[in-house]
Amino acid sequence: MIRVAVVGASGYTGVELIRLLHSHPSVELACVTSRQNVGEEISAVFPSLAEQVNLICDPVDPGLVAGKADLFFTALPHKTAMDVVPPLLEAGKRVVDLSADYRLRDVNVYSHWYQEHTSPELLGEAAYGLPEFYREKIREARLVANPGCYPTSVALAMGPLLRHDLVDRHSLIADCKSGTSGAGRSAKVGSLFCEVNEGFKAYGVGAHRHTPEIEQTLSEVAAESVRVTFTPHLLPVSRGILATCYAGLKSDMSTSDLREVYREAYSGEFFVRLLGEGVMPDIARVRGSNFCDLNVVSDLRSQRVVVCASIDNLVKGAAGQAVQNMNLMLGFEEALGLTGLPVFP
Amino acid sequence: MIRVAVVGASGYTGVELIRLLHSHPSVELACVTSRQNVGEEISAVFPSLAEQVNLICDPVDPGLVAGKADLFFTALPHKTAMDVVPPLLEAGKRVVDLSADYRLRDVNVYSHWYQEHTSPELLGEAAYGLPEFYREKIREARLVANPGCYPTSVALAMGPLLRHDLVDRHSLIADCKSGTSGAGRSAKVGSLFCEVNEGFKAYGVGAHRHTPEIEQTLSEVAAESVRVTFTPHLLPVSRGILATCYAGLKSDMSTSDLREVYREAYSGEFFVRLLGEGVMPDIARVRGSNFCDLNVVSDLRSQRVVVCASIDNLVKGAAGQAVQNMNLMLGFEEALGLTGLPVFP
Amino acid sequence: MIRVAVVGASGYTGVELIRLLHSHPSVELACVTSRQNVGEEISAVFPSLAEQVNLICDPVDPGLVAGKADLFFTALPHKTAMDVVPPLLEAGKRVVDLSADYRLRDVNVYSHWYQEHTSPELLGEAAYGLPEFYREKIREARLVANPGCYPTSVALAMGPLLRHDLVDRHSLIADCKSGTSGAGRSAKVGSLFCEVNEGFKAYGVGAHRHTPEIEQTLSEVAAESVRVTFTPHLLPVSRGILATCYAGLKSDMSTSDLREVYREAYSGEFFVRLLGEGVMPDIARVRGSNFCDLNVVSDLRSQRVVVCASIDNLVKGAAGQAVQNMNLMLGFEEALGLTGLPVFP
Amino acid sequence: MIRVAVVGASGYTGVELIRLLHSHPSVELACVTSRQNVGEEISAVFPSLAEQVNLICDPVDPGLVAGKADLFFTALPHKTAMDVVPPLLEAGKRVVDLSADYRLRDVNVYSHWYQEHTSPELLGEAAYGLPEFYREKIREARLVANPGCYPTSVALAMGPLLRHDLVDRHSLIADCKSGTSGAGRSAKVGSLFCEVNEGFKAYGVGAHRHTPEIEQTLSEVAAESVRVTFTPHLLPVSRGILATCYAGLKSDMSTSDLREVYREAYSGEFFVRLLGEGVMPDIARVRGSNFCDLNVVSDLRSQRVVVCASIDNLVKGAAGQAVQNMNLMLGFEEALGLTGLPVFP
Repeated sequence: MIRVAVVGASGYTGVELIRLLHSHPSVELACVTSRQNVGEEISAVFPSLAEQVNLICDPVDPGLVAGKADLFFTALPHKTAMDVVPPLLEAGKRVVDLSADYRLRDVNVYSHWYQEHTSPELLGEAAYGLPEFYREKIREARLVANPGCYPTSVALAMGPLLRHDLVDRHSLIADCKSGTSGAGRSAKVGSLFCEVNEGFKAYGVGAHRHTPEIEQTLSEVAAESVRVTFTPHLLPVSRGILATCYAGLKSDMSTSDLREVYREAYSGEFFVRLLGEGVMPDIARVRGSNFCDLNVVSDLRSQRVVVCASIDNLVKGAAGQAVQNMNLMLGFEEALGLTGLPVFP
Repeated sequence: MIRVAVVGASGYTGVELIRLLHSHPSVELACVTSRQNVGEEISAVFPSLAEQVNLICDPVDPGLVAGKADLFFTALPHKTAMDVVPPLLEAGKRVVDLSADYRLRDVNVYSHWYQEHTSPELLGEAAYGLPEFYREKIREARLVANPGCYPTSVALAMGPLLRHDLVDRHSLIADCKSGTSGAGRSAKVGSLFCEVNEGFKAYGVGAHRHTPEIEQTLSEVAAESVRVTFTPHLLPVSRGILATCYAGLKSDMSTSDLREVYREAYSGEFFVRLLGEGVMPDIARVRGSNFCDLNVVSDLRSQRVVVCASIDNLVKGAAGQAVQNMNLMLGFEEALGLTGLPVFP
Repeated sequence: MIRVAVVGASGYTGVELIRLLHSHPSVELACVTSRQNVGEEISAVFPSLAEQVNLICDPVDPGLVAGKADLFFTALPHKTAMDVVPPLLEAGKRVVDLSADYRLRDVNVYSHWYQEHTSPELLGEAAYGLPEFYREKIREARLVANPGCYPTSVALAMGPLLRHDLVDRHSLIADCKSGTSGAGRSAKVGSLFCEVNEGFKAYGVGAHRHTPEIEQTLSEVAAESVRVTFTPHLLPVSRGILATCYAGLKSDMSTSDLREVYREAYSGEFFVRLLGEGVMPDIARVRGSNFCDLNVVSDLRSQRVVVCASIDNLVKGAAGQAVQNMNLMLGFEEALGLTGLPVFP
Repeated sequence: MIRVAVVGASGYTGVELIRLLHSHPSVELACVTSRQNVGEEISAVFPSLAEQVNLICDPVDPGLVAGKADLFFTALPHKTAMDVVPPLLEAGKRVVDLSADYRLRDVNVYSHWYQEHTSPELLGEAAYGLPEFYREKIREARLVANPGCYPTSVALAMGPLLRHDLVDRHSLIADCKSGTSGAGRSAKVGSLFCEVNEGFKAYGVGAHRHTPEIEQTLSEVAAESVRVTFTPHLLPVSRGILATCYAGLKSDMSTSDLREVYREAYSGEFFVRLLGEGVMPDIARVRGSNFCDLNVVSDLRSQRVVVCASIDNLVKGAAGQAVQNMNLMLGFEEALGLTGLPVFP
């Protein structure tokens, strides 16, 4: 049994990590930390864990917790993660960091979209934790930067088109919609039930910080720099992301042609499911699971391809992908502990 | 008092028409019809009307109901409307038809997307009931084809860009999201609470029947034929449409430049509200009202404009716009009976 | 036109008051106040008001705002209301207070459930603003204590049973369920979308502050002191209260007998609707309206009566009832500005 | 590996059984049946199963499917189950029946609330599948009648009070609220998203068929016949039941005294969790899991006890409890395959 820890356990990603790790057959959850809840039972913070998870919240102090586990999941806000990850690595631990702090390889891009970086030397080392695209690098890594939820969905949706040079690189649009857990668990008026319920809106138009991350992955896949128009929206649901992606086709390809491209691209991937023709991905059909459902349609009238991808933002978009990365890092079977079916309805 | 009738009152558009007409100061709701509920109190079908609306459902029989009112709202499925509208017009009545049957001016386009048309001679006469674009024609019409919900949102969102030739006509994308009332009130598994709740998906990708209607309006505004990639999605809310529209800018225009275009375009329009810079339209902020909220952002990185428009699909997208059209046809003030504020939260 | 003001406009009750007063034909909304938003446009706080309500938030300062209106709605937290209401009355203004501060006639009961009262001399004067039970007193009042949302629903549900001495006074149970807007608009983790959505739970069991208010009204109706077991629950909806009330029948009464009692009790009441036999009140069927829907069933197997009442907690449970009270105080028709039908779906 | 079958797989209970059995380490799902979907892939019916469950729907024909499995879950409507269960038993199979057909021991009670029974001889034999109360009988049974969702929640909530004779047996009230999946997956207007969303109402007041089942269990626990006033309500959520139960206390017991009773009653029960004092059960905190969360409060003012119990109606209220019963019947560890934590948020 490998001992693992969740640093920053009192958010929604934290509790989802706990849920998945609790069911994992080869690791033991040995430590959880939370700034606001030091000394409290984690099951007092999240009654869903009652009687099943008996851990007291430690402070977010690498010196104090480093000895308690072999691998750490850091589920902290960006900037905060930068303070915690380096000392854990120095203590010889492996880290899956779920913040944005180690996702961008170019420190200037990071500092442009976020703030100054205090451990830029780790940017080159960190593996970008999208196993479907970077599996081998992840296996060797001591630090994995777990991808953002939107970037995961967009990369899986558009990657095959760019890898095979099927679309105009100046035509990429990602219209994305996320459940509200993506906004976190901090008390803000904008996240109140009555502000979100029965509502729907775009936010961060042309300015969301996941844009450079999306572009970094798609540029690597395309082997050429690409730009994306990215528009996130807030869905009145707890979980789920749907990415609806548009690109101009370079040649006349039918839906059937395009489906063949995706079938090949993901034929060996356990977690990526190309749905049957005409069955569009629905966030309700991946809820609670690590699957990414995809479908692709050729809109011949406008010479465009439309790709939809759905994931659970807390699983394949965060905690589940983190466990998938852990499995790779520890030499386990990649899907270990992640084979549960979606919870529907 | 002008007597009005709602033909097809047992759907969601029907009950919304009843709600709005009940509060209208210058008309009297004199008749409602329903195929399934003939002989029943309409308030037994919709308990929200209890004690306030005391009308028995008549059959959907133009001969029988023509004498009961001066103006008719036909809220029937397409194809069915074609059977009812001509006899009402022949009886000298005015009609606001909420179906798709008289929206497309070209009978071939209609028969391609729907089925054969049995009264094509009326297509040329019918006014397309989007007052912000076709006000004068509506005032004179005896038959108004009330626009579809998606086309209303997309036309108001993209119209100014095309009118002023600011965007590439081959670059138009409308990514639209609708509340579930748009799917109607018939008993289908796909509309069940548990199928829709906590879900979100695209449907009719590249094939939705509102596509030619959107293109007809935008082509008229552009004075040139345009094509649009249109993707509708199903939102787990009862009411509301958000249209997120994308187009390639012909020249570098800032958000501020674009906002000025929209401010001018809609300066005299009571129902179209350009929100403050940075405030994105939210369907929850127009619920129950006839407003269309808009905002526009320039994404200079990708040389694209993003326009969002929100409406209540049952009001500005159906019943409210129908009453707005009625007001114009009858010479009333255009906003009469429609000045209520959105119901938030 | 009578000028009115909303003191404490940045909460959900505040924005609902604004919505109702905006449509009211005989008053002018002349002033709004908000502690947090002084100097801001109220439409910046609530974009639903955009372009329609052009008022800047004044501070919550009676000296400053007293001159701006003739009648004041105070929608403040309890305790805060006590600081504002007395100076407004002294300035010769009429006040409808939506807090709990003037609802309880017995200062000791108030101080037991809340805190010390700083203007107990007003408790005897204040009219309890449940028009169906205290209409005449309200007409004469300069201070009306607008009832709580739960107490409104329970009083209307159980009043007739107690007035006619039909039930055992030791057997009263009110199992109530409220939409989340009842929890207010302050940023608390417990009110976040993800904490409430797809959830349901009881809270304040045996200890909710609306208990003495319910008991006060029912005791007055019964002309004898009664106790009630009251259990509130939090519903994952924005608006609505359903009260399911239980009492032991003193004699064998059929559903039909009981319905006759309710029919008589509310025969002249515009806002109370006894639904048809077998049609149970649904909060979705009163949303946005001032109606209270009722139904009553005799459970002969257990010799109990079950009464259900549904209201919109923000309308009949707060802002709508406040306007109803204002209408009485100002000599208007009682339903003026409140005749809109529920917004369904 | 024991082979199991789900008869009636196209409903919500069916797909939940498939989800749970798919993750179960000691059984193999070998067969699914569905009347409407014969010959279709079950993953075409439920895309959540895509690529993971590769089974074609067989017809609901005991002769045809009996050979395919060793133990059958029959998830059929009552009355239909009666046609299928006897031939399966005759073929030597074990059956967990999730319908109501074998839950009531008294055939007259069954025929009064349902219809004539065609295999009354099995009523005496069938074990009532509430393991916390009838574990030993279940272990020996070849036919287990899986309890209804409401009865499960009410029995676990009130059982300890009756077993220890702490409450007046004429005072029992169960005010229950269920998510919409309890209404099944058939296409009915009343189950449409727009009819349920943002709504809440009671139904079947004084007449719901779960009443005799609740009374049967509580009477057995009390060793005396008891009656219950039972009021079900429809919650606008997909999953979850909350039972709020009331009873008159025979003596002054504090919350702390009552909690001690419950702690003892369920000390060895893995799936029943008595929450910390003041933490009320929330359906969102058991979602997707087989737990039943409980809490109990003494309302000394009215000499009543209030007990709340929350379950996931599809898990502990149906499929999960069925698997728990299967585990007992097959000699597995009782919690095998059911230890997953709730999915929150």
